[in-house]
Amino acid sequence: MNYEQNIDGCLAGVIGEYGLTDAEFAPFLDDASMAISDLRADTSAGTADILALPARRDDIAAFAPLAEEMRARFETVIVLGVGGSSLGGRSVTQLKLDEGNATDRRKLEIRFIDNLDPAVMAMTLKSIDFSRTGWLVISKSGRTAEILAQYLVCHEAVRTVLGRDAANQFVVVTDPTDNPLRRLAVEGGHRIIDHDPGVGGRFSVLSVVGLLPAAIAGLDPAAIRTGAAGVLEQAFGFSSPDPCPAAQGAALSLGLASRRGAAMHVLMPYGNSLEPFAAWYVQLWAESLGKNGKGTTPVRALGPMDQHSQLQLYLDGPRDKMFTIITTAVQDTGPKIPDLSLPDDEIEYLAGARIGDLVAAQQQATTEALIRRGRPTRVISLGQIDEAAMGALYMHFILETIVAARMLGVDPFDQPAVDEGKTLMKSYLDRR
Amino acid sequence: MNYEQNIDGCLAGVIGEYGLTDAEFAPFLDDASMAISDLRADTSAGTADILALPARRDDIAAFAPLAEEMRARFETVIVLGVGGSSLGGRSVTQLKLDEGNATDRRKLEIRFIDNLDPAVMAMTLKSIDFSRTGWLVISKSGRTAEILAQYLVCHEAVRTVLGRDAANQFVVVTDPTDNPLRRLAVEGGHRIIDHDPGVGGRFSVLSVVGLLPAAIAGLDPAAIRTGAAGVLEQAFGFSSPDPCPAAQGAALSLGLASRRGAAMHVLMPYGNSLEPFAAWYVQLWAESLGKNGKGTTPVRALGPMDQHSQLQLYLDGPRDKMFTIITTAVQDTGPKIPDLSLPDDEIEYLAGARIGDLVAAQQQATTEALIRRGRPTRVISLGQIDEAAMGALYMHFILETIVAARMLGVDPFDQPAVDEGKTLMKSYLDRR
Repeated sequence: MNYEQNIDGCLAGVIGEYGLTDAEFAPFLDDASMAISDLRADTSAGTADILALPARRDDIAAFAPLAEEMRARFETVIVLGVGGSSLGGRSVTQLKLDEGNATDRRKLEIRFIDNLDPAVMAMTLKSIDFSRTGWLVISKSGRTAEILAQYLVCHEAVRTVLGRDAANQFVVVTDPTDNPLRRLAVEGGHRIIDHDPGVGGRFSVLSVVGLLPAAIAGLDPAAIRTGAAGVLEQAFGFSSPDPCPAAQGAALSLGLASRRGAAMHVLMPYGNSLEPFAAWYVQLWAESLGKNGKGTTPVRALGPMDQHSQLQLYLDGPRDKMFTIITTAVQDTGPKIPDLSLPDDEIEYLAGARIGDLVAAQQQATTEALIRRGRPTRVISLGQIDEAAMGALYMHFILETIVAARMLGVDPFDQPAVDEGKTLMKSYLDRR
Repeated sequence: MNYEQNIDGCLAGVIGEYGLTDAEFAPFLDDASMAISDLRADTSAGTADILALPARRDDIAAFAPLAEEMRARFETVIVLGVGGSSLGGRSVTQLKLDEGNATDRRKLEIRFIDNLDPAVMAMTLKSIDFSRTGWLVISKSGRTAEILAQYLVCHEAVRTVLGRDAANQFVVVTDPTDNPLRRLAVEGGHRIIDHDPGVGGRFSVLSVVGLLPAAIAGLDPAAIRTGAAGVLEQAFGFSSPDPCPAAQGAALSLGLASRRGAAMHVLMPYGNSLEPFAAWYVQLWAESLGKNGKGTTPVRALGPMDQHSQLQLYLDGPRDKMFTIITTAVQDTGPKIPDLSLPDDEIEYLAGARIGDLVAAQQQATTEALIRRGRPTRVISLGQIDEAAMGALYMHFILETIVAARMLGVDPFDQPAVDEGKTLMKSYLDRR
């Protein structure tokens, strides 16, 4: 396993009346364990396809040459995608932040334009070198208005400069069945890669949607899958009599929501390389569970920064939250703080420490402060943040989310309410 | 006024039982109006100093030459600050995203290193040209561990390369009374600018803390203050018999929290240039109100992106939120979507529209979808996002927050709970 989970800080034995007692926790754990058993047996589309991804290698072999080609040809690859088509790839490629993670040192910038903004779009088209820029256009349905609009605008701009060579600058990932983006891709002569039809956008990080950007960034997609496979194996492998960490997490979230009014789940990783991971998680949890009046609200935070923004509320505001702190092994990393040239009692504690030591002390202190105040706090500890650790994190939270959906009796794979907004948007645009 | 506020979508007359009735709303409005009257009369430190900022010009005249000098000397200015020392400056300099906002076109990059991360710190020091990089170090207390650590590391690196010229690369903003950062700045021979002692970090965006970065970025600080002054004038000027928008907003937030269980306030601006503004707001509201078990939880979202991540939960999840959508006048802006070369009924609605038209339709559709589902929704409409509009937004939400604090009976200017974590952190670091 590439991480450890400690749930003591959510239990009455440690935080007193604000935590769950064993008697309260037990039925939620039983439900979660049953959901895990059901998942193992489930062969329906959605679940089965998602859970089959970690063991697959055939598709990686198929897209690896394309990733190599893009790395060789381009200085910049721009990903046009939104939500599930973007957040997975964005979070995994963020790993490049930590030096030493990339399998090679060639400099290639991957940029995700995941918010539609007229000024950003205009500036992007003004500033790039079209001949050295590749485009990866991702939409499962092939009907996402933002992506179609971005593709049409960008393709026109590239074609104006490069003429017929524009065809070869674009790669499109979309559903194998007929759809508008696919028709445009055929018309434009672009390479088309099938989006796995059984894997919904927000669950697609372990498919080509997340792993092709990872490969383009120089990361190892197989290692990400291996990390995810380890989590599945523990969950389904009967290696321990205890429920797996994901089942424990789902049971805690729903137990604390139902017994202690924890309507929010704050995910607070420490370190910039996990910042987009929190954004990925927030979509996964919100869109999968938030239906029929059910679900809890995921809130993303970032340590240590949000100690100076949100921690006051977390420690002393209403008791309506559960916290997950993700810590990393940062001790002895980063630049060393020099010794002071003049003695100064007030900052002596910093002298000679490394930046990572300070962050390590902060993640421990925040956890401890929350627990002392009786705020339900789970800790997930990572060692190095590498491909395997990210794969494990993705699979952990995918499992936790699907288990929670089963416990709540909602379908984790649909998002019926947002279609209403899409229809309205089209009618407003037509009226223009 | 540089914005309009529409609160109809929070009232029972429009959204039915999930909105406030006039009878429910009235006492909250009365309380808010009384808080505004009290604020006008208040001469205590904190309030009075913050509300005096919009009319001041003396300090701008004092720091303007420094901003000019930094623009002339540097290609990059790195701001070391966290929370209130960073989020204001970050959000106002983001305005540069929208072309046409800068008063001149010289290219200067302002980078905010507001999260302490060993890998980011190491990479930053490796990648910059020290002779062309200026540093702006901001900490009101002068005791923030992250900022002291960052300063010590960065100053050492600069001094190793530039020797005695390092002194001139740093500008420090801190409290006028003795503190560790001030002592280090004196020792380093840096220019020191006093942080207004009566203005707390999260309320400091309209002081030198936000306006010096704005001036360095080429924005007009006086125009930001003028926008803020307009909001104060409306609030205090008896120009209308109705409570001012900020009083209405505070009354709605607390009324919906107390009568309808709206424990969260989601702030969802449309457009990348307002993304850091939402982060600024989230600190302001959370840290000012979240104490003694009181307060509500601010949640930031970004449109249109989060339509594909959070909207399902917002429309169909638990009824525990109030929404504020910030819309901008984006019609007829951005690149034009070309006409289709082949007819396609499914995407005909996009052809010929501009990117801004699509975003305009989306912000209208999201608002309408929330209201149709009876989700309490306020709309703040901006025209162009310029300095005056940002100044107005800052002052609106500062007022709204202070008014809400008075209504809740909490001190908006302290953050007692976070000190516990700081003490723990030092003890963990000492034990290393």
